[in-house]
Amino acid sequence: MTHSAAILGASGYTGAELVRLIATHPGIEIAALSGDRKAGMAMGEVFPHLAHLDLPALCKIEEIDFSGIDIAFCALPHAMSQAVIAELPGDLKIVDLSADFRLRNDGEYEKWYGKPHAAMELQQEAVYGLTEFYREEIRAARLVAGTGCNAATVQFALRPLIEAGLIDLDDIVCDLKNGVSGAGRSLKENMLFAERSEDVFAYSAGGTHRHLGEFDQEFSAIAGRDVRILFTPHLVPVNRGILASCYVKGDPQAVHEALASRYGAEPFLRVLPFGRLPGMSHVQGSNFCHIGVSGDRVTGRTLVVATLDNLCKGSSGQALQNANLMLGLPETEGLMLAPVFP
Amino acid sequence: MTHSAAILGASGYTGAELVRLIATHPGIEIAALSGDRKAGMAMGEVFPHLAHLDLPALCKIEEIDFSGIDIAFCALPHAMSQAVIAELPGDLKIVDLSADFRLRNDGEYEKWYGKPHAAMELQQEAVYGLTEFYREEIRAARLVAGTGCNAATVQFALRPLIEAGLIDLDDIVCDLKNGVSGAGRSLKENMLFAERSEDVFAYSAGGTHRHLGEFDQEFSAIAGRDVRILFTPHLVPVNRGILASCYVKGDPQAVHEALASRYGAEPFLRVLPFGRLPGMSHVQGSNFCHIGVSGDRVTGRTLVVATLDNLCKGSSGQALQNANLMLGLPETEGLMLAPVFP
Amino acid sequence: MTHSAAILGASGYTGAELVRLIATHPGIEIAALSGDRKAGMAMGEVFPHLAHLDLPALCKIEEIDFSGIDIAFCALPHAMSQAVIAELPGDLKIVDLSADFRLRNDGEYEKWYGKPHAAMELQQEAVYGLTEFYREEIRAARLVAGTGCNAATVQFALRPLIEAGLIDLDDIVCDLKNGVSGAGRSLKENMLFAERSEDVFAYSAGGTHRHLGEFDQEFSAIAGRDVRILFTPHLVPVNRGILASCYVKGDPQAVHEALASRYGAEPFLRVLPFGRLPGMSHVQGSNFCHIGVSGDRVTGRTLVVATLDNLCKGSSGQALQNANLMLGLPETEGLMLAPVFP
Amino acid sequence: MTHSAAILGASGYTGAELVRLIATHPGIEIAALSGDRKAGMAMGEVFPHLAHLDLPALCKIEEIDFSGIDIAFCALPHAMSQAVIAELPGDLKIVDLSADFRLRNDGEYEKWYGKPHAAMELQQEAVYGLTEFYREEIRAARLVAGTGCNAATVQFALRPLIEAGLIDLDDIVCDLKNGVSGAGRSLKENMLFAERSEDVFAYSAGGTHRHLGEFDQEFSAIAGRDVRILFTPHLVPVNRGILASCYVKGDPQAVHEALASRYGAEPFLRVLPFGRLPGMSHVQGSNFCHIGVSGDRVTGRTLVVATLDNLCKGSSGQALQNANLMLGLPETEGLMLAPVFP
Repeated sequence: MTHSAAILGASGYTGAELVRLIATHPGIEIAALSGDRKAGMAMGEVFPHLAHLDLPALCKIEEIDFSGIDIAFCALPHAMSQAVIAELPGDLKIVDLSADFRLRNDGEYEKWYGKPHAAMELQQEAVYGLTEFYREEIRAARLVAGTGCNAATVQFALRPLIEAGLIDLDDIVCDLKNGVSGAGRSLKENMLFAERSEDVFAYSAGGTHRHLGEFDQEFSAIAGRDVRILFTPHLVPVNRGILASCYVKGDPQAVHEALASRYGAEPFLRVLPFGRLPGMSHVQGSNFCHIGVSGDRVTGRTLVVATLDNLCKGSSGQALQNANLMLGLPETEGLMLAPVFP
Repeated sequence: MTHSAAILGASGYTGAELVRLIATHPGIEIAALSGDRKAGMAMGEVFPHLAHLDLPALCKIEEIDFSGIDIAFCALPHAMSQAVIAELPGDLKIVDLSADFRLRNDGEYEKWYGKPHAAMELQQEAVYGLTEFYREEIRAARLVAGTGCNAATVQFALRPLIEAGLIDLDDIVCDLKNGVSGAGRSLKENMLFAERSEDVFAYSAGGTHRHLGEFDQEFSAIAGRDVRILFTPHLVPVNRGILASCYVKGDPQAVHEALASRYGAEPFLRVLPFGRLPGMSHVQGSNFCHIGVSGDRVTGRTLVVATLDNLCKGSSGQALQNANLMLGLPETEGLMLAPVFP
Repeated sequence: MTHSAAILGASGYTGAELVRLIATHPGIEIAALSGDRKAGMAMGEVFPHLAHLDLPALCKIEEIDFSGIDIAFCALPHAMSQAVIAELPGDLKIVDLSADFRLRNDGEYEKWYGKPHAAMELQQEAVYGLTEFYREEIRAARLVAGTGCNAATVQFALRPLIEAGLIDLDDIVCDLKNGVSGAGRSLKENMLFAERSEDVFAYSAGGTHRHLGEFDQEFSAIAGRDVRILFTPHLVPVNRGILASCYVKGDPQAVHEALASRYGAEPFLRVLPFGRLPGMSHVQGSNFCHIGVSGDRVTGRTLVVATLDNLCKGSSGQALQNANLMLGLPETEGLMLAPVFP
Repeated sequence: MTHSAAILGASGYTGAELVRLIATHPGIEIAALSGDRKAGMAMGEVFPHLAHLDLPALCKIEEIDFSGIDIAFCALPHAMSQAVIAELPGDLKIVDLSADFRLRNDGEYEKWYGKPHAAMELQQEAVYGLTEFYREEIRAARLVAGTGCNAATVQFALRPLIEAGLIDLDDIVCDLKNGVSGAGRSLKENMLFAERSEDVFAYSAGGTHRHLGEFDQEFSAIAGRDVRILFTPHLVPVNRGILASCYVKGDPQAVHEALASRYGAEPFLRVLPFGRLPGMSHVQGSNFCHIGVSGDRVTGRTLVVATLDNLCKGSSGQALQNANLMLGLPETEGLMLAPVFP
């Protein structure tokens, strides 16, 4: 049996990535694609790399008949997402890729996103979509909130260490490098090729990046106390990829063992042999996350490096993995594509 | 039933690409991987992006037991390829990715590759692997010679036009742009990142590029007379991709119709609407080739632009497509992966 | 004695490049910088790479007192440029970098730029700014029109050949590759890093690119008859650089000799030894143009490749070279910076 | 009066960068260029971007007559450098760009570079070439040891803070991103374009990078106790540039003031307004270093980001700056070139 999916906001990069992945998924077919500003256009016109697929044309959300839809992927900007989802049928399964349902606490949402949440009851219902840590809740959920792409990367590196009490919670430094596609397709001067090529810079420094809301919520919950990590993202001239370098205080071997043991059975999380560190190009185009651990000549200091593809495992791949769970399909279906290198 | 494949020369980019593609192919499994200089290493060490796959370790060719192998992909350097293949079992199906069996005429081989061919009888047996034009011969073949990646791109643009007598055979200019992975993983100063980044240059100008041997052979055979095109490749700072701009004398609409009509039923060749031209990023990571046609304000002049991924449709994807035919499998099996963009 | 310069439209790339070049020029100082949308900002805020310079803040054009200005560089969008210049003092020396004064014929301007010219008398007064071919006119001019960057590159390759009657005027194919900074700092979806990186595509094909107006005007004037070349630009993922591959019918050695002889005394135009071809990275950041010539195995066919930096020799460097002439300064002053490689 | 310079090892990137800079220096002329493997070739053949300069051909070191040479720049590999310099005239001024004379302690040299030093007396004589901190010693020196490019960047960020006792010496984390040209022109598989493009990875992690020897020596000397920082470099796909993100414990405002005050009069070191952070593209092609400071929501944590061009301020520009001092020339001569952006 094939499940019908709608993708709302299909004219952005995460929407296109969903289409790419679902294209080889045997159990899901795309029944509707919305893209308000590009309504009426063929998906192959907006994204010529998808032109070989037999897809519905882009439409407006209000034109979609949701009665035959089993699951909706919502790849809309935050704030718009909560408004749209509030109007969708109450029994429709939804995977939201925006930031709207990641933070359970309304005050936290307003703090990081600048205005009150307009759909509080939905926010309470939503399950945080970090698959490997909320698998059973996701399986039972109607509404799953995709995580931030940076947030996923860092959590894969750190959650098992916090859970096991292996590291100093007051001294976690995460220096993150991320690719340009994470900024989406919106027009900003500093996202032009001529500005990004041959450049690297730190942004949202000083504890101002919105994904910190997710770290605060998740790490504090695990630790049972407030945890505030240092987190500085740097934009690097690559299309896809996030690489997080996490500097922690704790025993390197214990850290490595905790990660290797926790992720040993996970199909998409791969812990490298001790001392080996991953590169972005090892995972691009795929749903895998590679994690490496190194000690230091300074005793008790450990470096954990995690890397994944922001559009896939960090966003649309995660969404499809969660959708598989919600639909009762094998979790890895449509997601075992090998990375593309070089 | 699953077919067993060996990949000889698996430590290069085309070898790795074969593994990537076969990884999601339901009917072929990889039984052996050779890589002489890296024999003994795990494939995941040589190519960490393939580390999630359950693969045999790299070995030396002489360590492979070919008795259980149904098909061998030979991704070795030219000259070495003919020597190795001559020693393989005479009933083994082989897809060769080197240049060794592309030219039927021994003199032509020596002219372009600088020494006489050492396995003439095999050369005579080999079928030229341009799938869309040699499909039936390939289906029946034991030894198929993969085409040059540039050669494939330009032939997709021009063959139907020459067949139909639509263009002036004495005035064909092909200006080609290709990505860096086409040069393989061998160490050359001018392939270093610092030399290639931010640069574009023409190489093998003046009718000296070896793929001209393929053009001469194929175009002359179609036309029934000698055809000598002008062909200048330019290296551009991208990893994957070939984009050929072919300037011909002929009616633009007739050219477009000939291509659209010839390729209408082809699963991997896509002719765009008249006047629209493709970009490399529309096909990267996939087995598709996109072709566009434009007229000019100068009457009777036509531009045909074709683009494909040199490692996939230009090499390993083509090889797998041919292997599917040789093994009696559906031609598109394992090859319908959508391009990865951005 | 130091000359005072104003730069109008200094918040774009060509404006910034003018500042970079003039920064080391001993005879010119920058007295005013305009940038309407960024008026009030320091230049070092808009362009942090210029923050070490002691520069006037950006202002609105109407705030500039032109009484003490010796020369104005006008780096405004076309159409706006003619309106602004018409209001400037009638005795002010002006180098215009827009397209507004390149075409002498009003009908041609309207044909390529879509509306009638609003300052016809200025258009008649303007001298075409291709320094090496209009040197004496530029020296005497009040208003010099900078050439298109693509237009300069191709003219350097072809003018001496047309002048000498060495090539077939009805069969000139120019396949051009250019860097992204040529599109300026304006916001377009297809100029985002994620869209341009790893991509190459042809645009303005079919004889529609506006620089054709310059080719028509200049080549026809030289030849004494209508000349219509084929010209297709391709965008490549580099910041700076234009590389034009010109396919002509004519004797290769004669072509090489004509170029070498014509440019032998030119400080910025460098003809390579016969058979050697230049790369973009040989000229980036400088005012040099490198030109190479190759023959072909097809007798009578010749490839001329010219490359320059679009922001420097193709635009702001050319403008400064012309300003030097107009101000009676040594032509190469401030322009002998070596290219930056790698 | 013009000083004569020899550049030993001119066929590498730092040698070419020295030539680029000296080309516009009014007080130094290049009298000899050595490059053993390319001896006999013109510099313009090895580096076409320098072809417009009137330069001596590359020769072997033993062919140079040092009697007329005022200063030698030695851009040779480490170990070779000490052997060559030991044979040069004892009164020749020398700026060495290798690692051979950076570490004063012989045991440290052997520890980091794997074999004993062969010219200990020279090592004792050498002055560490971090201009802004050893200016007077350099002015008086005969032999100056250029610093590591990463080492310079991090020291610019941290020295004033350690001097002023503003930060916790036991908790300094430096996450560094550097461009590919830092690896030089030597042939390594992982420096190929296809391997580096679209990738970021950490290398020499765990306290194994050789530049740590410089940090240990310098920071411990300033602090009067052992200081061991954490330092992890990451390779990013840019040609030129180092960006060091230094996470320290100390008051952000005090840190900013210490840097701003210490560097206020320095011509090449620029401290940005508090809270603003620099990007690599702000300094590429120049001798400038930009430094920014940010606080954090976590009280008492400070981020210092420093960026410079590894080939210029990190290597050849520093060398020329030191040579200016050694020759009694103005320190900034030949070095005020503005960065090239975009």
